[in-house]
Amino acid sequence: MNRAQLISAIRQKRSFLCVGLDPDIQKIPSTLRHLDDPIFAFNKAIIDATRPYCVAYKPNTAFYEALGLKGWQSLQKTIEYIGKDHFTIADAKRGDIGNTSRKYAEAFFETMPFDAITVAPYMGSDSVIPFLDFPNKWVILLALTSNKGAGDFQLKGSDQLYREVLRTSAKWGTPENMMYVVGATRPEFFREVRVLAPDHFLLVPGVGAQGGSLADVAKYGLNGDVGLLVNASRSILYASDGLDFAEAAAREAKRMAEEMNAILTEAGL
Amino acid sequence: MNRAQLISAIRQKRSFLCVGLDPDIQKIPSTLRHLDDPIFAFNKAIIDATRPYCVAYKPNTAFYEALGLKGWQSLQKTIEYIGKDHFTIADAKRGDIGNTSRKYAEAFFETMPFDAITVAPYMGSDSVIPFLDFPNKWVILLALTSNKGAGDFQLKGSDQLYREVLRTSAKWGTPENMMYVVGATRPEFFREVRVLAPDHFLLVPGVGAQGGSLADVAKYGLNGDVGLLVNASRSILYASDGLDFAEAAAREAKRMAEEMNAILTEAGL
Repeated sequence: MNRAQLISAIRQKRSFLCVGLDPDIQKIPSTLRHLDDPIFAFNKAIIDATRPYCVAYKPNTAFYEALGLKGWQSLQKTIEYIGKDHFTIADAKRGDIGNTSRKYAEAFFETMPFDAITVAPYMGSDSVIPFLDFPNKWVILLALTSNKGAGDFQLKGSDQLYREVLRTSAKWGTPENMMYVVGATRPEFFREVRVLAPDHFLLVPGVGAQGGSLADVAKYGLNGDVGLLVNASRSILYASDGLDFAEAAAREAKRMAEEMNAILTEAGL
Repeated sequence: MNRAQLISAIRQKRSFLCVGLDPDIQKIPSTLRHLDDPIFAFNKAIIDATRPYCVAYKPNTAFYEALGLKGWQSLQKTIEYIGKDHFTIADAKRGDIGNTSRKYAEAFFETMPFDAITVAPYMGSDSVIPFLDFPNKWVILLALTSNKGAGDFQLKGSDQLYREVLRTSAKWGTPENMMYVVGATRPEFFREVRVLAPDHFLLVPGVGAQGGSLADVAKYGLNGDVGLLVNASRSILYASDGLDFAEAAAREAKRMAEEMNAILTEAGL
């Protein structure tokens, strides 16, 4: 999915919601656990319930890898089931020397048909650029993450490291093939990020279970093309731990989409 | 495998060689490609040929993930085949928010029985610490990598970022459960690294195909417990592209082990 198609999907649905598919076998309803592939069954129900309210899905690879071969199989089935109408993000936080990053790109862009992959910037240019060689595919580079440990390095240095990452990586990709991760738990930084990256989409985790506020993010994060994908995982997936988990997920996704619609209207978008 | 066992293996074999198992389906001998699991067949031959000369194996997950489910299966068979006499490193360069890093730890320490995993430090403390909760397991944190892009961020800042990483992470783990990646392509930095991390083992990629020198690394990198695991991947795996690939790999691993033996003798170790 390219940039114009993503923007068009957002405008049509009046939503910039991304649903994080991080299924924890210990948290999914016990009735599903007896099935042959409980993780895929859970994801399928969540996807069916939330499709109208979101424009993107973001499985985090850790939750699948923890289950070994069976987990990897569930991930493959999930990405195929999502299909082509939603933007798909492998939240994999990969990054390695050039010939190796190229293999990760094959894994997530060819072997599995994701639109985008999250990449950690620590290893620099040649760990990121191989992903950018794939047409209509995206790198989503970690800039300022939502967790407490983000303060350990990302905010360090006379010029802060996350600013250095934004500035340096702007030479590698464009707003057509690169986005940035900026956590909702640090809304005060969005103004700063928009100075350095006015046109890029930002993938924003940390709303919901991690405590970030959608209104705060939108205030400084929105640009003329919306420019935001706001992710929620646990607050949607586990909105109920009963048999009504899918209905509860739909309700929570709908509630967020309605809040997004109001934000877009207020911003004249 | 704990620190004492690793040191004992190094002293017994007079080698601190780690063999990187990065099998590229396009590079392995064509005679293997018709087999049901050519990647595992290749790895098995390499492992059988190099066992006496190395103390560690390091599969890089990218090369397996690129092949999807089949690749993940080859990785599982490989780690089982290596067994308990060698130190095993999942070169995965993972790292995510706390609950997610915990899942990666389950993937590589429980679902697959690796001794160690490489972790990228960008997301800070809570992305690294969950891995350290597993007894007798290791985090190998990226400090100064062997690639050109290492200069983009790792050497930036008034105090360089890799020094900040060494200093800050020293509070998270100990030389009993943490190592650092320091690339052989930058031997001039080993003296500096040893000031900040005198006791930690260093995992050193970049000898061989990437051009680093073993003698240069040893000069400043060795400590009283040896403290080095030097990795070679392509120079061993593809020492020959013919039917004699395993014999050629053995020869190259043996040559490196002999060089290591001489270095240890000269250092009185």
